[in-house]
Amino acid sequence: MSLYSEIFYSSEINELFSDKNVVAEMLQFEATLAVSQAKEGVIPTSAAEIIGQCCHTDFIDFERLKTDIKLSGNAAIPLVKQLTEIVKQKDSEAAKYVHLGATSQDVVDTATVLQIKDFIDWLEERIGLLEHHLITLTNKHCNTFMIGRTLLQQAKPITFGLKTALWLESIVRSKVRIEEAKKRVLVIQLAGAVGSQNQQINPKVKALFAEILDVETANSWHSNRDNLAEFASVLGILNGGLGKIAKDVTLLMQTEVGEVFEGAAAGKGGSSTMPHKRNPVTSTAILANANRVPHLVSTMLSGMAQEHERSAGLWHSEWEVLTEIMKLTAGTLERGIELIESLEVDENRMLENLEITQGLIYAENVSLALASKIGKSAAHELVENACKSAVSEHKHLKEKLIELSVDLSENELNELFKPENSIGLSLEIIDGILGKV
Amino acid sequence: MSLYSEIFYSSEINELFSDKNVVAEMLQFEATLAVSQAKEGVIPTSAAEIIGQCCHTDFIDFERLKTDIKLSGNAAIPLVKQLTEIVKQKDSEAAKYVHLGATSQDVVDTATVLQIKDFIDWLEERIGLLEHHLITLTNKHCNTFMIGRTLLQQAKPITFGLKTALWLESIVRSKVRIEEAKKRVLVIQLAGAVGSQNQQINPKVKALFAEILDVETANSWHSNRDNLAEFASVLGILNGGLGKIAKDVTLLMQTEVGEVFEGAAAGKGGSSTMPHKRNPVTSTAILANANRVPHLVSTMLSGMAQEHERSAGLWHSEWEVLTEIMKLTAGTLERGIELIESLEVDENRMLENLEITQGLIYAENVSLALASKIGKSAAHELVENACKSAVSEHKHLKEKLIELSVDLSENELNELFKPENSIGLSLEIIDGILGKV
Amino acid sequence: MSLYSEIFYSSEINELFSDKNVVAEMLQFEATLAVSQAKEGVIPTSAAEIIGQCCHTDFIDFERLKTDIKLSGNAAIPLVKQLTEIVKQKDSEAAKYVHLGATSQDVVDTATVLQIKDFIDWLEERIGLLEHHLITLTNKHCNTFMIGRTLLQQAKPITFGLKTALWLESIVRSKVRIEEAKKRVLVIQLAGAVGSQNQQINPKVKALFAEILDVETANSWHSNRDNLAEFASVLGILNGGLGKIAKDVTLLMQTEVGEVFEGAAAGKGGSSTMPHKRNPVTSTAILANANRVPHLVSTMLSGMAQEHERSAGLWHSEWEVLTEIMKLTAGTLERGIELIESLEVDENRMLENLEITQGLIYAENVSLALASKIGKSAAHELVENACKSAVSEHKHLKEKLIELSVDLSENELNELFKPENSIGLSLEIIDGILGKV
Amino acid sequence: MSLYSEIFYSSEINELFSDKNVVAEMLQFEATLAVSQAKEGVIPTSAAEIIGQCCHTDFIDFERLKTDIKLSGNAAIPLVKQLTEIVKQKDSEAAKYVHLGATSQDVVDTATVLQIKDFIDWLEERIGLLEHHLITLTNKHCNTFMIGRTLLQQAKPITFGLKTALWLESIVRSKVRIEEAKKRVLVIQLAGAVGSQNQQINPKVKALFAEILDVETANSWHSNRDNLAEFASVLGILNGGLGKIAKDVTLLMQTEVGEVFEGAAAGKGGSSTMPHKRNPVTSTAILANANRVPHLVSTMLSGMAQEHERSAGLWHSEWEVLTEIMKLTAGTLERGIELIESLEVDENRMLENLEITQGLIYAENVSLALASKIGKSAAHELVENACKSAVSEHKHLKEKLIELSVDLSENELNELFKPENSIGLSLEIIDGILGKV
Repeated sequence: MSLYSEIFYSSEINELFSDKNVVAEMLQFEATLAVSQAKEGVIPTSAAEIIGQCCHTDFIDFERLKTDIKLSGNAAIPLVKQLTEIVKQKDSEAAKYVHLGATSQDVVDTATVLQIKDFIDWLEERIGLLEHHLITLTNKHCNTFMIGRTLLQQAKPITFGLKTALWLESIVRSKVRIEEAKKRVLVIQLAGAVGSQNQQINPKVKALFAEILDVETANSWHSNRDNLAEFASVLGILNGGLGKIAKDVTLLMQTEVGEVFEGAAAGKGGSSTMPHKRNPVTSTAILANANRVPHLVSTMLSGMAQEHERSAGLWHSEWEVLTEIMKLTAGTLERGIELIESLEVDENRMLENLEITQGLIYAENVSLALASKIGKSAAHELVENACKSAVSEHKHLKEKLIELSVDLSENELNELFKPENSIGLSLEIIDGILGKV
Repeated sequence: MSLYSEIFYSSEINELFSDKNVVAEMLQFEATLAVSQAKEGVIPTSAAEIIGQCCHTDFIDFERLKTDIKLSGNAAIPLVKQLTEIVKQKDSEAAKYVHLGATSQDVVDTATVLQIKDFIDWLEERIGLLEHHLITLTNKHCNTFMIGRTLLQQAKPITFGLKTALWLESIVRSKVRIEEAKKRVLVIQLAGAVGSQNQQINPKVKALFAEILDVETANSWHSNRDNLAEFASVLGILNGGLGKIAKDVTLLMQTEVGEVFEGAAAGKGGSSTMPHKRNPVTSTAILANANRVPHLVSTMLSGMAQEHERSAGLWHSEWEVLTEIMKLTAGTLERGIELIESLEVDENRMLENLEITQGLIYAENVSLALASKIGKSAAHELVENACKSAVSEHKHLKEKLIELSVDLSENELNELFKPENSIGLSLEIIDGILGKV
Repeated sequence: MSLYSEIFYSSEINELFSDKNVVAEMLQFEATLAVSQAKEGVIPTSAAEIIGQCCHTDFIDFERLKTDIKLSGNAAIPLVKQLTEIVKQKDSEAAKYVHLGATSQDVVDTATVLQIKDFIDWLEERIGLLEHHLITLTNKHCNTFMIGRTLLQQAKPITFGLKTALWLESIVRSKVRIEEAKKRVLVIQLAGAVGSQNQQINPKVKALFAEILDVETANSWHSNRDNLAEFASVLGILNGGLGKIAKDVTLLMQTEVGEVFEGAAAGKGGSSTMPHKRNPVTSTAILANANRVPHLVSTMLSGMAQEHERSAGLWHSEWEVLTEIMKLTAGTLERGIELIESLEVDENRMLENLEITQGLIYAENVSLALASKIGKSAAHELVENACKSAVSEHKHLKEKLIELSVDLSENELNELFKPENSIGLSLEIIDGILGKV
Repeated sequence: MSLYSEIFYSSEINELFSDKNVVAEMLQFEATLAVSQAKEGVIPTSAAEIIGQCCHTDFIDFERLKTDIKLSGNAAIPLVKQLTEIVKQKDSEAAKYVHLGATSQDVVDTATVLQIKDFIDWLEERIGLLEHHLITLTNKHCNTFMIGRTLLQQAKPITFGLKTALWLESIVRSKVRIEEAKKRVLVIQLAGAVGSQNQQINPKVKALFAEILDVETANSWHSNRDNLAEFASVLGILNGGLGKIAKDVTLLMQTEVGEVFEGAAAGKGGSSTMPHKRNPVTSTAILANANRVPHLVSTMLSGMAQEHERSAGLWHSEWEVLTEIMKLTAGTLERGIELIESLEVDENRMLENLEITQGLIYAENVSLALASKIGKSAAHELVENACKSAVSEHKHLKEKLIELSVDLSENELNELFKPENSIGLSLEIIDGILGKV
């Protein structure tokens, strides 16, 4: 694997998609096909046993395989050829039953599905972990005041817990999407040369084959790739959700903002010549992936108009791209967990930053309070002018309002300039979200 | 609308997304907000009534609106300004209650959702129609023999009904995806300036507001755009499924293939100087859209890492793109219905094309039949050699086999070279698919 | 045009691509073809004159045209039909010479090129204007100190002029790219039905035709679309360069940074309820476009594998997409000019922000100065420890160093903590860049 | 490397981008920097010599490097750390001069440029080879008649040489684009922490550094990435041009067309159970890449809006993507050469296919010939009716015309139905193209 195998990816998922594991899943296809056919009386049980014994990656010549893939156009043709030779050495009769009735795309597609299945298992467990950390963070900071920002401008106060609760909601929706997509994507491909099946892969064989592999049965999807495109999209959306979190963190980590920080670790994100720097390394990796994955998803969508019963090129374009989407998603998610698990929050800086505008973020509070006393229009006009004066005179708005002797007691004014009185229904929203997960 | 408003689009959906209708939905937001707030005692009922009366597009100055959008950065700010002026002319008190507690993104996003709702209604009805035509076509041609093709090469016989049944399956899955995405995308946006809500848009107001608009309530998704990205993806997948159908039709309409044809219409697809041409005009439009939509979907995915409580640019990039995705999808679907509804099938040409290889497509049949008599290896070798001789001598494989006096009667040979004995489980698969829709 | 015709686009360029102008260019093709053929003796001069007189958009029924485009598959077929009818009404003999020897793609493609030509004229003039404003800004701020930021962290001082000079360099390179692409894209399409030309469009006719239209002659590029793809890419890169500028501006406009601001205008970017907000409306529009254009460029690239002598769908997918790329680029550029022309710089805030880290950004200066006195390693270690203490004790680094009695005079220390001594070769680099434009 | 390292890629270019070679180029940066600084008196010559001796990949711990990349956020930081340790073991004084004045992005970007340089050398040599094969093919088949096809319909005759000459033109234009892009992309990155340079990397050092590396000097492009985006685009266009060739080949190889074939090779593209199949394996690989690369190019474009003086994520997203674009382009080009070099053309089948429409493709010839005798309108009408009758009666158009006793001798008719009289200026166009390369 490349220099960047750890920063953008997950080691576990890199391993899942190693050449060896890809080939192992293809061999799993052949062994399972044989045993299913044997149980349904299509081939001799002895043949299935021998085939099963030969379905091990140790027997495969990987270098020859790569070269032959170039000649034959996919991985299954030369793999089946090697497997057949291996079986033949044990029992030439059994060799006749290798891959019986199946087509090369059946092997490649089903092997992909089996890897997707393992990937989803990993993914769901990790999303659970991410949710857990987000829930913890939200609970901890449900009442931590900070400024809400729109178009990168300070707007009005919220709590940090509201921000993280909304992050959480997006991740939870991604979890549901994966669940829904699973029904469609976790299905066998076993349809024969042109998708019409045949007696060797009759419905009973298919049902058993699917049962053993623990996925659903299906008609040919050789050139109907909507399920894979959907799965790619769903992962793209998960990446986007994590990209949003990472974007917020990088912005909050800015030297001029300084409200949250990635957890420190020895050697992480520092600079020897710039001692003040604390680079958002983990978020940066997530954002890099978030810039890449959407384009890989659209490669899958662009590849859907596949010709006839099997495409000349579009199917082939999926192989590495779908794998890359899964691998990058794993990296994004793993980085996301690391990020949330160790996120440091500077509550004091959040409070300080609420004061940067010298009270202007509370102007609407004052306006609403005054309205009940002097009427809406008058209140609005008064506050607008007070704001202008405060800015031009570099004064705090509250100070200016006192100067102007507005019809509000100092106590009333103090209350109006407190973040706790300006966070809307943040707490209720957080409760609602946490109550549902 | 542009010169291409009819070829790539649907007039009905173009109309749905006209400036007037977009603004109408935004005004619908304001009217509904006012009435909900009135019913929950937040604003006077009289104010809500006046606001409601003013929420008509006839009162809006569209040219001024466009110019002001450039200055203010979105459509809601200047629209609310115009609306407030209009209300003020009727009742200056009521004007104070326009848009109360809401933020401009609430208006834009909810209006988008309301349009998505109308769009989905249209879409579901049309998908139903497409399914109907695909079912009819499949029923008619379940037993129409044709060659199955892989990598653009003739492979083995199938029936045309198998091909169309698999097209149908993909469309049915798209229907399910839309159904599932609906739950998430058909939700209000009503969260206030920074997504924290406020007393003016409290849970009761929101619940009533959502009920009136006939969509679900939701927390702020101001900068969590996964639901829109999902909806875009689901439409992208539907486009891809139709692209696959159109690709097949263009290939089958090739002069050298000539198996299916787009329905003829006066002035459609012809050429005065090339009388033999019958251009696949409808499929061409679908394929054009299928090349465009994936990239628009990835624009939505690329736009997900939105900053803080409202993005500076990524949100804005969604507006025209999501609309364009819906409009192109409508065009694709409408063209798809036209295509399937009037598709002409040349069954004789399909039969003729089955003979192009002079029997080679039946070689495996012979090999399997001979195997039971002379053993698998011998059979395979014999047939392989017969094929080579047939090709080099430009003879039909059956003729060659007779010449070679293979151990099969002429009657047996005749059966082996019939498409009806070579379509695998095509009919069973078709039955299965039709049985489920 | 849509609600967003002003915010994301340029009115002038919207107009250039109006239906009327598109059709006018196609009619220009027919008139020029006729006159060229007449001058080369291919058709009667009188016929060319009559054809020329009929080539006006006033005579065209646009509604009928749109409907017929759907039937015929492109705009040229029904337009030529209408034109022929119009000519016929004047002179049935002349009608025979309309569009002689040409094919519909010749018309559509050449008309596109003519629009690109007008667009480039506009573009080059506007890029010149942008350069002018960038040069002015750079000259004004070559010596305006600010912090340079990497990974959104304060790093070391630069000058604002260095930042804008590097913006300028990117724009200048885009200008060169457009110049280079022009040679290839500004060429006629006049190749006949299958690109093989014919006597009606012989080399002499083509040469004259190209000369009149003031573009170069060329062989068929009916299905070789590299030049259009290149032009799209070049525009994509220009958009990206402006996106980078807008990104910087939005970040510098953050409330917590406050170093530059978009020029104020009545009604621009403000918020009545949040008086402190100054939204980066112009930059936001640029960033929205910058998120969209890359995906449109890749649509052009995805459409390059066009079939045979004319594609069934991929050619068609270019029409609206290339136009959209040009229109969005025009909007981006126009917004960019507005942005740079009126950009406000708060030099004091830039200086204040240089103090946020309390001297840490100058740590390397101290380290280098000390090295000559106490050796590199000792200096590095001393400064590293001083930084840590300063941070933990919330002291300015200079104060801490004085406390630690380092081997530097107060005067020396003062110099080391000045931005003017920390901007590297910023001024020389700026001079170099300005010297070349 | 993956299972697909040979089918979609080039082994030579895979090797160029191996981890070892990537790191070697980064070490080349450090060695060259040191020697340049020594020659300009910035650092001691002895230090530069020792640093140079240590710049070998054998000394690098790659596993540690990958792990540290994750922590530090790029490859240069931990590599410089390792290098410094290595130098320190030899000479602790020299260690102080490692990487002096440079920043990590300088290393990564310059190393990338050095790899681009090697890649372009390879690319240009291979494009030359592709051109050579295309010229040979064009010369051989300048006069080989075949049908030209538009929208996948037979249109009018061309020669195969015209098709290949137009393929060639597109490749030649790509060569020019690469040449033009080279000027901009083959430049050093050596600008220091925030792009402002410093005395250690002063103009003289930079000039020498660039001279040694044999690329041009340049100001900081740390966050102005237009040159890389351009290079990616240019490669995308080359991919598209080859995709167009591969698309044509797959279509021409269809069983029903059978006009050209990929060169045969042992084990290539065959199917044991379908002896008639000759899969377009090489074209399929090209088309797969052609579906992938556009989306990778747009990743580069989407990554252009980089923040401030160095981006947090967008820069990082380029690393693997740009490499992947180059690697896939190499595969596409290598496959393209293999394809063209060994392409087999069935001239007889091309002639046969010209007869599929039974003369209809010559209808316009007849119409033009008759026009001079009976007038244009009458001729057109007569031929149109003759075509209709011929089709409905399944007769050859010539036969029908004879039946109708048209005013043309049999000899004249024979001439009108010959492809050699219907190829327009194919030969002249080919001559023109070959004359220029």
